[in-house]
Amino acid sequence: MSSISFIGLGGMTNAIAARAVKGGNTVELMGRDAAKAKSLAATLGGGATVGTFGAVPTGDIVVLAVPYTSAVQVAAQYGSALAGKILIDISNTFNADATGVVTPEGTSGAQEIAEVVPESAHVVKAFNTVFGHVLTQEGSRDVLFAGDDAEAKATVSAFVTSLGLRPLDAGGLEMARWLEGVGPLLMGLAQNGAGFNIALGINTLN
Amino acid sequence: MSSISFIGLGGMTNAIAARAVKGGNTVELMGRDAAKAKSLAATLGGGATVGTFGAVPTGDIVVLAVPYTSAVQVAAQYGSALAGKILIDISNTFNADATGVVTPEGTSGAQEIAEVVPESAHVVKAFNTVFGHVLTQEGSRDVLFAGDDAEAKATVSAFVTSLGLRPLDAGGLEMARWLEGVGPLLMGLAQNGAGFNIALGINTLN
Repeated sequence: MSSISFIGLGGMTNAIAARAVKGGNTVELMGRDAAKAKSLAATLGGGATVGTFGAVPTGDIVVLAVPYTSAVQVAAQYGSALAGKILIDISNTFNADATGVVTPEGTSGAQEIAEVVPESAHVVKAFNTVFGHVLTQEGSRDVLFAGDDAEAKATVSAFVTSLGLRPLDAGGLEMARWLEGVGPLLMGLAQNGAGFNIALGINTLN
Repeated sequence: MSSISFIGLGGMTNAIAARAVKGGNTVELMGRDAAKAKSLAATLGGGATVGTFGAVPTGDIVVLAVPYTSAVQVAAQYGSALAGKILIDISNTFNADATGVVTPEGTSGAQEIAEVVPESAHVVKAFNTVFGHVLTQEGSRDVLFAGDDAEAKATVSAFVTSLGLRPLDAGGLEMARWLEGVGPLLMGLAQNGAGFNIALGINTLN
């Protein structure tokens, strides 16, 4: 079991933190709105605590769960408070009509975030290929992830498993671009007949 | 049922054409190596014919099944022979180590191909998200596709269904970039623990 801090109090934090508590992990919630954090902690139960936004997270794993539009700025604001942490970037980077991404060629949201955190922090991209409302539903889903540090990825993998989800390693952090490309792809499928109640899965054949 | 011409005689043509014959479609094979085309046609059966490389294809649907390194050049060589056709681009565009794509930002292999064919030809991206060796195995797989012409997409969708596969519309041709991004992503997953006998699926939840 792991100790996890969430930065941000939106739908993804709700969905992942609920599974984290159920999986026996220790959960801390950090948001600009302390009252909202307190209320969410009470709803979650499982001894979930509230931390101070911008302070050193108690968790070994920190889930950065704010919209990509503010993710880099928030990561930079935390700065040295993230030293030695595993930072999971869950952001989707797609543009207004969800046909493309806002990050420049040759990089990704995860890599942009990695640029502004201490070198001792290990950024892992994960969870962006699953809709939040899908995570709130029962059942195992595939969680694709990417990162450069093998030990950090092993920790994230164990954490994902504790959530009742299946971790799948896509490679180094440079693969975050293609994980983020799944964002517009899922939106495109959802809007062109498949609907939004869909989950991407990787089926292993016999 | 449709009438289909394949340009290229590699593994993907083998896999798709075998399903096409089984699904009652009319198949024509076009390759630079006429002997190889003849041999493949005999293996396929189902009245598969051999066409002349570069000539007007007999099929209403033309599957461009050559490596991306030569796809644009071959499409340009066919040129006006593709007028009025539905051209399915199945190419994967990833680079040597399969961590990125060779096409520039803001475009895709499919869009580059669309640039060199007659305006009356409708390019649809499809099949690149499924490994060829997976298509040779029994069973339904998800075939994601994208294109700008609704009628052409409906025809491709019916063709995919005739192959015993499930068509899923991802949107306009600009979405081809993200379909092509699935190429490196599947390679990354395959090389980092999942193995190559995998298929991407879109699961509709209850």
